[in-house]
Amino acid sequence: MSSGINWKMNKIMIRLALITLCLLFSSEIISQKVNKEDSLMIRSIYDEALLNGKSYDWLDYLSNQIGGRLSGSIQAEKAVNYTKEELDKLGLDKVWLQPVMVPKWTRGIAEYAFIETAPGVTSTVNVCALGGSVSTPAAGLKAEVIEVQGIEDLEKLGEEKISGKIVFFNRPMQANLISTFSAYGGCVDQRYSGAKEAAKYGAVGVVVRSMNLRLDDLPHTGSMSYGETPVNDRIPACAISTNDAEYLSSALKLKPDLNFYFKQNCKVFPDVLSYNVIGEITGSQFPDKYMIVGGHLDSWDLGDGSHDDGAGCVQSMEVLRLFKEIGYKPRHSIRVVLFMNEENGLRGGRKYAEEAKLKREEHLFALESDAGGFTPRGFSFDTDEANFQQIQSWKPLFKPYLIHYFEKGGSGADIGPLKDQQIVLAGLRPDSQRYFDHHHAANDTYDAVNKRELELGGATMTSLVYLFDKYGTKSSLTTVKN
Amino acid sequence: MSSGINWKMNKIMIRLALITLCLLFSSEIISQKVNKEDSLMIRSIYDEALLNGKSYDWLDYLSNQIGGRLSGSIQAEKAVNYTKEELDKLGLDKVWLQPVMVPKWTRGIAEYAFIETAPGVTSTVNVCALGGSVSTPAAGLKAEVIEVQGIEDLEKLGEEKISGKIVFFNRPMQANLISTFSAYGGCVDQRYSGAKEAAKYGAVGVVVRSMNLRLDDLPHTGSMSYGETPVNDRIPACAISTNDAEYLSSALKLKPDLNFYFKQNCKVFPDVLSYNVIGEITGSQFPDKYMIVGGHLDSWDLGDGSHDDGAGCVQSMEVLRLFKEIGYKPRHSIRVVLFMNEENGLRGGRKYAEEAKLKREEHLFALESDAGGFTPRGFSFDTDEANFQQIQSWKPLFKPYLIHYFEKGGSGADIGPLKDQQIVLAGLRPDSQRYFDHHHAANDTYDAVNKRELELGGATMTSLVYLFDKYGTKSSLTTVKN
Repeated sequence: MSSGINWKMNKIMIRLALITLCLLFSSEIISQKVNKEDSLMIRSIYDEALLNGKSYDWLDYLSNQIGGRLSGSIQAEKAVNYTKEELDKLGLDKVWLQPVMVPKWTRGIAEYAFIETAPGVTSTVNVCALGGSVSTPAAGLKAEVIEVQGIEDLEKLGEEKISGKIVFFNRPMQANLISTFSAYGGCVDQRYSGAKEAAKYGAVGVVVRSMNLRLDDLPHTGSMSYGETPVNDRIPACAISTNDAEYLSSALKLKPDLNFYFKQNCKVFPDVLSYNVIGEITGSQFPDKYMIVGGHLDSWDLGDGSHDDGAGCVQSMEVLRLFKEIGYKPRHSIRVVLFMNEENGLRGGRKYAEEAKLKREEHLFALESDAGGFTPRGFSFDTDEANFQQIQSWKPLFKPYLIHYFEKGGSGADIGPLKDQQIVLAGLRPDSQRYFDHHHAANDTYDAVNKRELELGGATMTSLVYLFDKYGTKSSLTTVKN
Repeated sequence: MSSGINWKMNKIMIRLALITLCLLFSSEIISQKVNKEDSLMIRSIYDEALLNGKSYDWLDYLSNQIGGRLSGSIQAEKAVNYTKEELDKLGLDKVWLQPVMVPKWTRGIAEYAFIETAPGVTSTVNVCALGGSVSTPAAGLKAEVIEVQGIEDLEKLGEEKISGKIVFFNRPMQANLISTFSAYGGCVDQRYSGAKEAAKYGAVGVVVRSMNLRLDDLPHTGSMSYGETPVNDRIPACAISTNDAEYLSSALKLKPDLNFYFKQNCKVFPDVLSYNVIGEITGSQFPDKYMIVGGHLDSWDLGDGSHDDGAGCVQSMEVLRLFKEIGYKPRHSIRVVLFMNEENGLRGGRKYAEEAKLKREEHLFALESDAGGFTPRGFSFDTDEANFQQIQSWKPLFKPYLIHYFEKGGSGADIGPLKDQQIVLAGLRPDSQRYFDHHHAANDTYDAVNKRELELGGATMTSLVYLFDKYGTKSSLTTVKN
């Protein structure tokens, strides 16, 4: 029993035992990595956020005193001034405005639309112009309608059946997807590219079913693009409420040659000067290495932009306020960036990244909140495996706060332009079930935001920034052993 | 290197290696136990719930056609008839009513209250009688007020300072607790026992700060008890809105001898006959072993009881509908039980358990939904370690649905009386942040329930019942190896 072969086998077994023990212990260490100091710091972050949070008051002002903040509007300008003033009050190390030229598109007076099933027999329906659409002729546009379930139907139908008609894109969001963002992703091409594609087949206008999982009367706007379509060939595009989309679809079954009328009064003006609003706590150890947290200050114009993205802005401001309030002095420079023009241009996000590159500012981590002020469930990370493993080791710290979602995926549109090999990008992931009930519609309003849900989001973001600041990112040179 | 000692050590190491390997593999097996069949079944449950769910329509009727369903009311009777009819339509094996005598307390005409800071100088405030309270004298009750932060303050103040006054219980819910149910638990003794305790010190009435984390104008009712207090010593008790609680408190600081007036018109009638509503799919293999799923059909009277607990009722009905719809034939008998009188008596829950015992019906598993129709986060389990470990092994199956919370804890009031050594009790745990915004108040209404959130709850419940039905409970004799 003690021959050479046995000994070899024993050695193999011993090695195996050691490896498996190591594995066991390392997973133990991960699951137990609830560093007491971190645990207490995070508790104090949540306490301050829930007991003395400022974000809900800030949102109240942004939503109820200023309102919808379309790029280039007077409201967007007011929001820039207001948030700068509020950041000034926090006693940060720097607060400044970063100039950026933004597009200016206006809706004009409210849209009007009806279905005409016989001369003089009309039913009014609820529509709104898509952001960036051209207006209809001054007298409105009336034409027959052809219903499709998506862009791919256009080619099947061909010019003969489409030419001279209004194309009605009616593919609904898929209700059995758990993430409503996935359901949105499966439909939004109709809104973004529908007009551009339909115009190729001679369509005279486009009506798009609102990106909304509920049946209600509110049309939901959102960005669209004509791409390379020559100016004279651009056709007007509107969104129709889900209830009216259902109605139009059933009316078409009864009377395929009914007419649809709509009138919209949009205009494009020359670009105007606007700003990203930026505040900074300068890092105590690495003042020239940056971690940023942000949302976008502009919004659509139908509601007051409370969820999209007033919530993300005030949560991001709250991150810096919480650090000041609990007396945490970050090692890296932490910036809040309120980006201008996410909705119809992304000019703010691009400008920030451009300047960062120009000034050779090293950005290690960026976190965006742009998915509504709902109960936070966790984060989505756009990063490499080494960083992702470090993040996974922090999960136990978040368990008491019911934050459980730490997955790889996208981050946020505004921070996207910062992407390079080194930076860790992240997006807050709140519960998504109600988001598209309000998204880009007249009911994206303050009353639809719950104070606690908003505050929990801010605290959750702050906790993640704290951990990244303390432990560094895996690709950064600032990583320290604790 | 091959001595006896070494060999012994090697043997120990080998044994250790084997044990650690086993541990590793078993944890691997647990984390990978995403049985394909289960995974597909659960997917089909969620698909059916989200694409063709019935629960939201049922809730529409219960809330908007029937309304608040206080025990003994005509609305409660209507709800019994309606839900029985709807269960009849599902083609279950049995549907029946289980008679139970319930208390009948009525609010009478709306309450009225004001703060009087000087003769004739009054400010109206929003109050409602607590459930079970006696009425005030016909002319109302006016007295000075003493504010306390909880029952424990009464003894400190003593009879001298309390006698002849209205005691104002003003301890707020603790906002920095993540579970709002914990915050509720820390305050609700003021509501439940405040009047009983204050009467001992000669108080003439009780005003309780509403159990609400928001500041708003709605008073929240709820059960209270006089315990053994003799009938003639019972004092009226009302809830005051959080805004008015803040107002009263600040007014008392300025004028400690202000008067508070309230008038309420409650009455207690003799017990009346009511019913639990029960439907059953009889088990194919174990027809005499039961698993039940339920909520309570009664509600308070101020709102329409949509979250508390219309949601739990229609979700429980949906469990059986989903099984029928997807063609799943349970091995055990699965019952939906809509309990009567959870709010002010628990008579329905007690009756069901009593009859189950009498008929020697073996109950293996009971699941209650009574925490609102919000996005489900998981379940709380009242069970032993063996069952809890089996439950933990099912977690990966729920991950695609963002259901992550599987903890030991309470279950539900109505199923509590079934507790014995064998049964596994569970409670659905939805996101709790908004629950107490609506709980027992006039805004517990249909519009505050989101269709998808409600449906996700029903699907989550169905998935858990499916797993318990398939694998049995650990204490049951019906457990089979799969």
